[in-house]
Amino acid sequence: MSPVEQKAINTIRLLAVDSVDAANSGHPGAPLGLAPAAHVVWKNMNFDPKDTKWIARDRFVLSNGHACALLYSLLVLFGFDLTVEDLKQFRQLGSKTPGHPEVLDVPGVEVTTGPLGQGISNAVGLAIAQKQFSATYDKPEFKVADSFIYSFLGDGCLMEGVSSEASSLAGHLQLGNLIAFWDDNKISIDGSTEVAFTEDVVARYRAYGWHIIEVADGNTDLAAIENAIVEAKKVTDKPTLIRLTTTIGFGSLAQGTHSVHGAALKKDDIVQLKTKFGFNPEEKFAIPTEVTEFYKANVAEKLKVKAEWEKGFAAYKQKYPELGEEVQRRLDGKLPKNWADHLPRYTPSDSPVATRKLSEIVLTKILPVVPEIIGGSADLTPSNLTKTVGSTDFQPPSTGLGDYSGRYIRYGVREHGMGSIMNGIAAFGANYKNYGGTFLNFVSYAAGAVRLAALSHHPVTWVATHDSIGLGEDGPTHQPIETLAHFRATPNISVWRPADGNETSAAYYSAIQSTSTPHIIALTRQNLPQLEGSSIEVASLGGYTLIKHDKPDIIIVASGSEVSLAVDASKRLETEGFKAGVVSIPDFLTFDKQPLDYRLSVLPDGAPILSVEVMSTFGWSKYSHAQFGLNRFGASGKGPAIYKYFEFTPEGVSERAVKTIEFYKGKTVYSPISTPF
Amino acid sequence: MSPVEQKAINTIRLLAVDSVDAANSGHPGAPLGLAPAAHVVWKNMNFDPKDTKWIARDRFVLSNGHACALLYSLLVLFGFDLTVEDLKQFRQLGSKTPGHPEVLDVPGVEVTTGPLGQGISNAVGLAIAQKQFSATYDKPEFKVADSFIYSFLGDGCLMEGVSSEASSLAGHLQLGNLIAFWDDNKISIDGSTEVAFTEDVVARYRAYGWHIIEVADGNTDLAAIENAIVEAKKVTDKPTLIRLTTTIGFGSLAQGTHSVHGAALKKDDIVQLKTKFGFNPEEKFAIPTEVTEFYKANVAEKLKVKAEWEKGFAAYKQKYPELGEEVQRRLDGKLPKNWADHLPRYTPSDSPVATRKLSEIVLTKILPVVPEIIGGSADLTPSNLTKTVGSTDFQPPSTGLGDYSGRYIRYGVREHGMGSIMNGIAAFGANYKNYGGTFLNFVSYAAGAVRLAALSHHPVTWVATHDSIGLGEDGPTHQPIETLAHFRATPNISVWRPADGNETSAAYYSAIQSTSTPHIIALTRQNLPQLEGSSIEVASLGGYTLIKHDKPDIIIVASGSEVSLAVDASKRLETEGFKAGVVSIPDFLTFDKQPLDYRLSVLPDGAPILSVEVMSTFGWSKYSHAQFGLNRFGASGKGPAIYKYFEFTPEGVSERAVKTIEFYKGKTVYSPISTPF
Repeated sequence: MSPVEQKAINTIRLLAVDSVDAANSGHPGAPLGLAPAAHVVWKNMNFDPKDTKWIARDRFVLSNGHACALLYSLLVLFGFDLTVEDLKQFRQLGSKTPGHPEVLDVPGVEVTTGPLGQGISNAVGLAIAQKQFSATYDKPEFKVADSFIYSFLGDGCLMEGVSSEASSLAGHLQLGNLIAFWDDNKISIDGSTEVAFTEDVVARYRAYGWHIIEVADGNTDLAAIENAIVEAKKVTDKPTLIRLTTTIGFGSLAQGTHSVHGAALKKDDIVQLKTKFGFNPEEKFAIPTEVTEFYKANVAEKLKVKAEWEKGFAAYKQKYPELGEEVQRRLDGKLPKNWADHLPRYTPSDSPVATRKLSEIVLTKILPVVPEIIGGSADLTPSNLTKTVGSTDFQPPSTGLGDYSGRYIRYGVREHGMGSIMNGIAAFGANYKNYGGTFLNFVSYAAGAVRLAALSHHPVTWVATHDSIGLGEDGPTHQPIETLAHFRATPNISVWRPADGNETSAAYYSAIQSTSTPHIIALTRQNLPQLEGSSIEVASLGGYTLIKHDKPDIIIVASGSEVSLAVDASKRLETEGFKAGVVSIPDFLTFDKQPLDYRLSVLPDGAPILSVEVMSTFGWSKYSHAQFGLNRFGASGKGPAIYKYFEFTPEGVSERAVKTIEFYKGKTVYSPISTPF
Repeated sequence: MSPVEQKAINTIRLLAVDSVDAANSGHPGAPLGLAPAAHVVWKNMNFDPKDTKWIARDRFVLSNGHACALLYSLLVLFGFDLTVEDLKQFRQLGSKTPGHPEVLDVPGVEVTTGPLGQGISNAVGLAIAQKQFSATYDKPEFKVADSFIYSFLGDGCLMEGVSSEASSLAGHLQLGNLIAFWDDNKISIDGSTEVAFTEDVVARYRAYGWHIIEVADGNTDLAAIENAIVEAKKVTDKPTLIRLTTTIGFGSLAQGTHSVHGAALKKDDIVQLKTKFGFNPEEKFAIPTEVTEFYKANVAEKLKVKAEWEKGFAAYKQKYPELGEEVQRRLDGKLPKNWADHLPRYTPSDSPVATRKLSEIVLTKILPVVPEIIGGSADLTPSNLTKTVGSTDFQPPSTGLGDYSGRYIRYGVREHGMGSIMNGIAAFGANYKNYGGTFLNFVSYAAGAVRLAALSHHPVTWVATHDSIGLGEDGPTHQPIETLAHFRATPNISVWRPADGNETSAAYYSAIQSTSTPHIIALTRQNLPQLEGSSIEVASLGGYTLIKHDKPDIIIVASGSEVSLAVDASKRLETEGFKAGVVSIPDFLTFDKQPLDYRLSVLPDGAPILSVEVMSTFGWSKYSHAQFGLNRFGASGKGPAIYKYFEFTPEGVSERAVKTIEFYKGKTVYSPISTPF
């Protein structure tokens, strides 16, 4: 190790220590242990600190996101739009250096991490996207996005099931562009990993089909780290796990113990550490000039690589104008012109169709015209109807099952891994719009990843079929009750539950147009009629009136499969002398964004409103005065029999509508849409 | 294989085939392949079909729950309270043979399975409970609950992360009482497992520390299966995975393909299958007399074992009266008398304390008097404060870190595995009341298991600390927004968010008393004052009035850390001339169970109601006219700074209260508690 590199590494370490010290909060242990590897990896990575979206950059994912003081220090030293002043604001409200790396707040952060296991799984998604993009657009003379995905992960990430799922799939997919460093420091919050984590990680990853490299001394042996990267790059048909043995809190008086994990170092410890590292113990946030120069020179080399790429890309565009235009369009984040013209439209005379089938029709129509749409399913392809006829699997060519330009991903029974991988694919850039299929009920298995999609603004789409008790015989273990409420309560998720073909098209229109909001599209197993009055345009408002009366006795508001039920109930009520309006709300989030007067026109003052949805009524009081739903678990039986049992029939709805009308008779009824603030 | 055993196995197979055929729905493939192993395992298990709660029974968990036609056939043949008539009602509404095994509906089912990966993880919990119970009560001359836990699992279960988490822990804990059969049939719904699941499962489980046995021909080699069980039982310091190579749909014309997985066999296929197996193709649900006799004789042997146990237990109770009484009390499902007297009580003069700390105080008080309480944390022990001083770890004695009578489980960073294991511990019986700690936000990682706790009526408790933006610097990745709404929307979960010490005691009172409802107790990181007017008794109503006015201008309803904020706002409003009542609702579920007139006395007609909670307002419109919450993700910063930023201050609340008062001025205001039906 050259003296300047030694100094550089200690600079990274001490910037992290000073950041945590300034905040009196944070995690100094991992940065102290990982600084050498971070230095070597970042030295070797291709990127442009001033163009963080350059598509051919190498990516770095800090899966142990609590070590973000390390990442922030790197971003400062490598010249990203982050300064020492930002480090001084570490973990303070409004700073660019939040307590975990947030992709929206910190320039140069690839994915938001912190919830353990997500980062490494995102990295698998990044690696899949890189492979798919390259296989689609590369030419012998120019690789459009030749890059590697690096990730650091700790013991915690390895214990989480989501990383197991994603890592198993990464091995199957032979993702040679993925290089992960396991920070084997033998410490977690509960103390020694001996208390709960004694498995043979290396053997496990070998069983997944990963290439394994061991670096015995990650604290000081830079050459071994460098060699590991070189060797990892050579193995192109396997992801690599580098077992990096480090000392948590390296250099601290408490090194090797969990007390350096999650709290600022003691003042005298910092003094001895700085002294030991040859820094002035009085000085904070010091960056020696030679370190600045070292990284500046290193970045200059990186920029040469980028300049080469730019030259190559210009030539590529000239030689392959159509492909070049497509790549450029995707890099610009623009969808193909008129893509939405391909969305199917329906009239009431069209046959009843299950919305899962309508979803398949949409995918069949739009996949050929929108190359950035790729997707898959967690082993429920024939049930989710997510694979369009003739599409190719994304598979290693050696398997004979597909190739890397394939657009259909076989996720296996791995919902959480899928969710996290979907986020990684979205994070790659190139306008990827990727979807994943499972039963609505099992999106919950992936709740950790779905939440991060919402927080990170990843425009991913969950094709969530079998959306209610209507799925029938599989019974309560498979019938969602709370699922829609869960995700409707999460900020920034569009939770669509389309009622027919036009609403299904509207759901996809919203999902594919989206640049910052994940979508969950809840779809039926059972057939639904095409509604009178629906259209892509009105459904795109998130909520609209299907049956309008001047002075209704009641308004029935519903979603998905219950909208046609509400229509039937309205007809029945008419024979009983009641005027019942009907409103469809396929997506709360979209509806809530409409102007107040529009929303009030849909759910006006003056008439009581009854909501109907065959699941938890939780949250519906926002739009209604009375709620008919299912605040218990479902039942195993034939779908129609279950609907009848729980009285989700025109009679059952009408009866409750009449009760509601009677209850509110003589009372002044205000729209629940009007609120004081 | 003796001819009668061959016939018995084919009887199991054909009962399953006929069940699926009658329903025209279900999964015949796995039963056909697994019948031989099922026959051998059940032949070897100890149980009493008429006393399904016998504590010393061996347990069987069908982790691939979709294969339940197999399980139901076994239950019929071994004389449980299930008949051929029930099989004829397979998957029909109201039957005792639902589409997946439901513990509440089917006598003899140990845990509800279907959501993949859960069953094997429950089995780990059962194995932990068995070890803990035995280590606590066994004497050299009598083992109170000497038993094995058997589980069948398929490729799907192995792909799920939850099983990875639980299996890694099972290896660490050296659970020699756990014997799992991997149905290695190479088929999943998407077709061959080659498309997504090519890892080396055996090597992975060896890496976890499991003992591996391979049975090359699970279709016919009964001796190998029998030997595998004998060998597995001999290895007492490792769980065993038996790789059982089978043919899915064995005997069917479509055997070995995914088409036999999830749909009834064709009629002519059934005819050839019955003919091939020597059965009358015209006859349905046939049970040859010699098969009935064979199983009857086998059960008679089992009952002898049970009679021995009963004799032994009677002698044990005589020799160890205190211990015997304790075991008997637990088997009767009764808590120790007066245990609740140990719950701490507080007065307003007591210091402000974080509710996570108050939770620790409760645990410290009640653990010594309630031996059936055991618990742990997903690697956040020092943050969740879930380990009481001096308690022993549940660890293999060979580790030197604890022993099997230990009551504190080190789960590692494995929330989903923990949740599923908690369910298994509860399912063991013996009145176990087990808890698991993590941050509230990461209970979502375990959503799949939490849902099953609610569905299966497992009285488990989640100690969910760091319950809001109040946790501060860790930022949005760690700050719950939607979490309470998610679980409040789930049927049968008590979601407590206590506001002070008395409410925390009430939450635990509810949790420990519970026999059929899981609890999530959301606890703060930050200190909260002891409230004037709170008590264990009033809090146990789920909601109550803290500040009462005869004719209030407004009522502020809040939970947890916002209750004291509401009290402060009320005081502030008083100086502005407004009378603001304050209501605390620590648990929606409990409050909803109170009589209507009590609920109306808390939230009466006549005054507008404003809810205050620093998270998603979703669902609060059920109790309030206006909602002050956080319908966006949080922020990284100091807790108090974030509260201020989002205006969760007495000023911020008062301002919204005044707006609410003004908005409703002159309007007739009805309580949201009154509903038409």
